[in-house]
Amino acid sequence: MTIGTEVKSVRIVGAGLLGTSIGLALSKAGVDVSIESASPSSQALAVDYGAGRNATAMDQPDVVFVCVPPDVTAKIVVAKLSEFPNAVVTDVASVKAEILDSVEALGSDSARYVGSHPMAGREKGGAISGRADLFFGRPWIITPNEKNSKSAIALVKNLAIELGSTPILMSAKEHDQAVAMVSHVPQVVSSLLAARLNSAEVDQVSLAGQGLRDTTRIAASDSKLWTQILSANHEAVSAILVDYAADLQSLAEALKDPAAPGAISKISAAIEAGNSGVARIPGKHGSKAANYAQIVVMIDDRPGEFGRLLHEVGELDVNIEDLKLEHSPGAQIGLVELSILPNALAKITEGLLAKGWRLAG
Amino acid sequence: MTIGTEVKSVRIVGAGLLGTSIGLALSKAGVDVSIESASPSSQALAVDYGAGRNATAMDQPDVVFVCVPPDVTAKIVVAKLSEFPNAVVTDVASVKAEILDSVEALGSDSARYVGSHPMAGREKGGAISGRADLFFGRPWIITPNEKNSKSAIALVKNLAIELGSTPILMSAKEHDQAVAMVSHVPQVVSSLLAARLNSAEVDQVSLAGQGLRDTTRIAASDSKLWTQILSANHEAVSAILVDYAADLQSLAEALKDPAAPGAISKISAAIEAGNSGVARIPGKHGSKAANYAQIVVMIDDRPGEFGRLLHEVGELDVNIEDLKLEHSPGAQIGLVELSILPNALAKITEGLLAKGWRLAG
Repeated sequence: MTIGTEVKSVRIVGAGLLGTSIGLALSKAGVDVSIESASPSSQALAVDYGAGRNATAMDQPDVVFVCVPPDVTAKIVVAKLSEFPNAVVTDVASVKAEILDSVEALGSDSARYVGSHPMAGREKGGAISGRADLFFGRPWIITPNEKNSKSAIALVKNLAIELGSTPILMSAKEHDQAVAMVSHVPQVVSSLLAARLNSAEVDQVSLAGQGLRDTTRIAASDSKLWTQILSANHEAVSAILVDYAADLQSLAEALKDPAAPGAISKISAAIEAGNSGVARIPGKHGSKAANYAQIVVMIDDRPGEFGRLLHEVGELDVNIEDLKLEHSPGAQIGLVELSILPNALAKITEGLLAKGWRLAG
Repeated sequence: MTIGTEVKSVRIVGAGLLGTSIGLALSKAGVDVSIESASPSSQALAVDYGAGRNATAMDQPDVVFVCVPPDVTAKIVVAKLSEFPNAVVTDVASVKAEILDSVEALGSDSARYVGSHPMAGREKGGAISGRADLFFGRPWIITPNEKNSKSAIALVKNLAIELGSTPILMSAKEHDQAVAMVSHVPQVVSSLLAARLNSAEVDQVSLAGQGLRDTTRIAASDSKLWTQILSANHEAVSAILVDYAADLQSLAEALKDPAAPGAISKISAAIEAGNSGVARIPGKHGSKAANYAQIVVMIDDRPGEFGRLLHEVGELDVNIEDLKLEHSPGAQIGLVELSILPNALAKITEGLLAKGWRLAG
């Protein structure tokens, strides 16, 4: 266990998705994890789940993870700094500046409080969704404050590494501005778009394609949590929304009368600005996809068909580099796109045709 | 061939993704397909591809598919109505009312023009992306006008069915309002959000997660095409954008000072309206997902690993009902979520562990 000499004992406060996942991973790594939660049933579930043991009055944790909703995080951080005068206390809330300000305003010594934000999560919340690999390869932002010692920061950083994530250091304010752009404003935009569907006819909504599904997926997020996040980060979010609203106003103006001078170039410029903006997002697969050939297999969308395909692809002994499943809405047909090395294309094509599969295209 | 008695010969005008795909499918079905395109190279490519033969001056098609950009669709429809006085002419543009108005304004008899819009497409355009199954299970909206005969409408409807799609009849105006909601406004919202990334720091954009990727994916769409679509459907799009902008204004106001009376409930109501809106979108998989158990396998993200997993899953002889690949951004680790029937969970878990795979959770 790489962190054994430094961290022997950890307290998790709050047994939701993040607390449970941290507990699972650190327990596996041999750390003594004690769990407390305001909800006895969540606490019992997390303990049953293997995320740690029940907290006792005798515990003296080296590090405390405060994994509670953003609006009570500062209060709990202050309480734990006081309860464990030798521990480093961190948290996992997705807003950082307001919490740091509150901790300091509550008269607490922030030298032992190191804010952090693991950028991991799943659509399903709660202890039951917890998993030890939740943080694997994800960014874990650590937001040191001016009073932190190097050793306190290093302690949190090493735990983030132990949990499989990539620690990134920035100030609380820089963090809040970054997540406003990549997370909080997209949430607002998606929620407001989805809200428009409430006024649409059922027949209209039934025509939804992948574009609408993608743009509104996060609109299903928890409203209680997001009200807290948006409120806590309202300044950074508002700053971007002002620019977004101005762009929207300008485009809406052009759309009122596309025949007016300059209107078409305004509309075109808006779409092009979107092209260049989205191109800035680093690719998931890097440059990899370009090196493969694709083959698309049509399968009946009934139990067993997909498994049979995988089985028979396996028998062909061709390396499959990637796979995408596409369900055609409304139809009992699925499309499976297989990526293979170009020199394996003939082999897999012939092999699948020989086994009776239908190829698309 | 189910449509053989009615339709023996079809003309495709325009050899892009949709024209080529229609040609491929109808050629396969035994229809005589002639292809013409303003671009000789696109036409040659589509013919090489098997989408049909080169058009000649002798052709007398029963049906003409006009598959050109929206801003020239009306003009070409009118030309083809005149060139082929016995043919039914249809088009595939994603706006319908303006085209019908233009066809009628150009003094053409619209009795033989039946507008239509196959709601299919891929991110990659051009003949090279064409495929015969492009329309499988997709909605194909047909927008009859008052002068159309029942037989003209039936002809287009039967071709849509022959192409594997589900025909849906509505007026041109109803169509435009529906696609404004499910397609055009999402495009605007996504483009404007992505445009904000142009002002963001590289370090900020590098924190992009799945939420930002999903909400901005369609922002990569072709700006020339979308400028035409938005201009042609500006009235329906504008009407929804007015409501969207009002919602945005109200939320932005609340976010300026979340401590003000009523602000929190306004923020919460906006997120909740998004929750109920997105819930109206019919599920892709229906109720299927709930019936399966999931297992998550961790794989090194290097060539061959995924193929090896598929091969060894195949050897276990367990039915795989669904599969999801999750690449962890920045890490050389991939997560593969396999859905299986609950009673196969033990078998696949033991089998994969025995073969040395690491399971997550």
